[in-house]
Amino acid sequence: MLALVLDPGPRIVTDYPRPLAGPGEALIRVDLAGICSTDLELRRGYKDFRGVPGHEFVGSVVESDDEGWVGRRVVGEINIGCGQCEPCRQGVPSQCSMRRAVGISGWDGAFAEFLRLPLSNLYRVPDDMPDEVAVFAEPTAAALQSANLVHLRPEQRVAVLGDGRLGLLVAQALAVTGAEVTVIGHHRSKLDLAANWGLETRTDLGGGLYDVVAECTGSPQGFSDALDVVRPRGTVILKSTYRGLAEADLTRVVVNEVHLVGSRCGPFAPALRLLRQNRIRVRELVEARYSLTEGTAALEHAGRRGVLKILIAP
Amino acid sequence: MLALVLDPGPRIVTDYPRPLAGPGEALIRVDLAGICSTDLELRRGYKDFRGVPGHEFVGSVVESDDEGWVGRRVVGEINIGCGQCEPCRQGVPSQCSMRRAVGISGWDGAFAEFLRLPLSNLYRVPDDMPDEVAVFAEPTAAALQSANLVHLRPEQRVAVLGDGRLGLLVAQALAVTGAEVTVIGHHRSKLDLAANWGLETRTDLGGGLYDVVAECTGSPQGFSDALDVVRPRGTVILKSTYRGLAEADLTRVVVNEVHLVGSRCGPFAPALRLLRQNRIRVRELVEARYSLTEGTAALEHAGRRGVLKILIAP
Repeated sequence: MLALVLDPGPRIVTDYPRPLAGPGEALIRVDLAGICSTDLELRRGYKDFRGVPGHEFVGSVVESDDEGWVGRRVVGEINIGCGQCEPCRQGVPSQCSMRRAVGISGWDGAFAEFLRLPLSNLYRVPDDMPDEVAVFAEPTAAALQSANLVHLRPEQRVAVLGDGRLGLLVAQALAVTGAEVTVIGHHRSKLDLAANWGLETRTDLGGGLYDVVAECTGSPQGFSDALDVVRPRGTVILKSTYRGLAEADLTRVVVNEVHLVGSRCGPFAPALRLLRQNRIRVRELVEARYSLTEGTAALEHAGRRGVLKILIAP
Repeated sequence: MLALVLDPGPRIVTDYPRPLAGPGEALIRVDLAGICSTDLELRRGYKDFRGVPGHEFVGSVVESDDEGWVGRRVVGEINIGCGQCEPCRQGVPSQCSMRRAVGISGWDGAFAEFLRLPLSNLYRVPDDMPDEVAVFAEPTAAALQSANLVHLRPEQRVAVLGDGRLGLLVAQALAVTGAEVTVIGHHRSKLDLAANWGLETRTDLGGGLYDVVAECTGSPQGFSDALDVVRPRGTVILKSTYRGLAEADLTRVVVNEVHLVGSRCGPFAPALRLLRQNRIRVRELVEARYSLTEGTAALEHAGRRGVLKILIAP
């Protein structure tokens, strides 16, 4: 089958073996996939991943030993745990130390014509939800995890640092709690998107102190900025991942008694519901769409500064 | 009066002006004071402090416009807030942005014959509590703040990194919650103290993963060690303060969804109660006692590697 492969550099191959669905698994034809910053990190050597990247997708089940799934349009959770350990038993395979992750670690992903997944990872996509929306289920779930981990309240002021694809999704996810959300970024066109969604926007850190600050800049500098604008005893949500270490003033964390909360993968069911209700808007985040044969160009485009979501349609 | 003064280096002066208690304040004769790592940082230029350091003390009220306090043996909270701002109105002057702090910032401290304090900062010391115990009220309160901010439970495994004066106090404070506490350090004699108090001890990080890790090493390396031993979705309590920045792998915080909680000053009333009940033991932490005239030697001693609590008796 056609696939984009990291080996370790990205290339398109036409004869990648089509996966076989085992017992309790589905073979899924990929209808649409999205490029995430993690894919760009993998391309640069993160996790030394070899194989097919891509973990944001919507597709259709073409084979499964459970007939009820065949023909269904689905999205899927990306973590495949061992099923035995404490995190797995608590329903948190994303923290299983033996986990594989679709398109990231030990499991081929969605930048291909087909992928396979355990049925237990699948969620049905509502019939009235376009592929261009459903493909955002995974990053929307991840954005919602912040609101799962931190009790956000309508009386609170929240700042989101970063107006990229991560920040604009996290800002909307935090705003569903009723809190007042301000997006702080440097790109007028993106801040205008946020303003159109009813969010506050700023181009500087001068807006006073915030109860909660979500760090979505994707750069080590973001942490220092977050400490500049969080109130004493406030909360900083860490969403950015990047290679290299931040120079972090942890003494300020102690003196100001700040809470920091790392947040990664999240719940698909509320993500699909809020996307369907249009309470989280994603179509404006799509910057361009490529065919899979142009996959390496798509990755290159996604890696340019300030680019929002790039989609790949096999 | 006799006082140890930072100017910016430490020196003993005999003619430092004796403070005057204003309305609602007390003049306190210092009976015993303790040297904290913050005092050593001040000596190295932290906060550019000039004046009398010292914020751990027990003393006796000798003057006040409220006669009920005169003659009372007291300890005192160290933060003096503006009284008007949001943190002050919420009873958290330790987070007032205009705050002064006894012996640390804008207010003379306890390495002198006398200090003054607002009456609202004072706590009576139980008659049966020796000075050598009461002088630990402030650092014990600070240690207890960790248990105030994080819900610790008897079923949890807790690690304390660092077996210095901070770590040994924090370990006891966390153990009062019923959690299983392991002190991880490098000094056999100090770990023996902890073992005598019923705590687990280790000299390496190999004891598996912990639900909660308190970072009390006083060094930037401690943060990385804490991330090595905290379980996914676990909590790291940050207690260490130091000059300079840590190289922090914040991406690991995101991927493992770790909570970080900065913790500083704490509640005096439970500190005094738990000290009185001997549930937090401090007498074994006293390493040496100096007279105030030997104050610079006392500071020098406290700054040596591996030294526990040094007391100064005016």
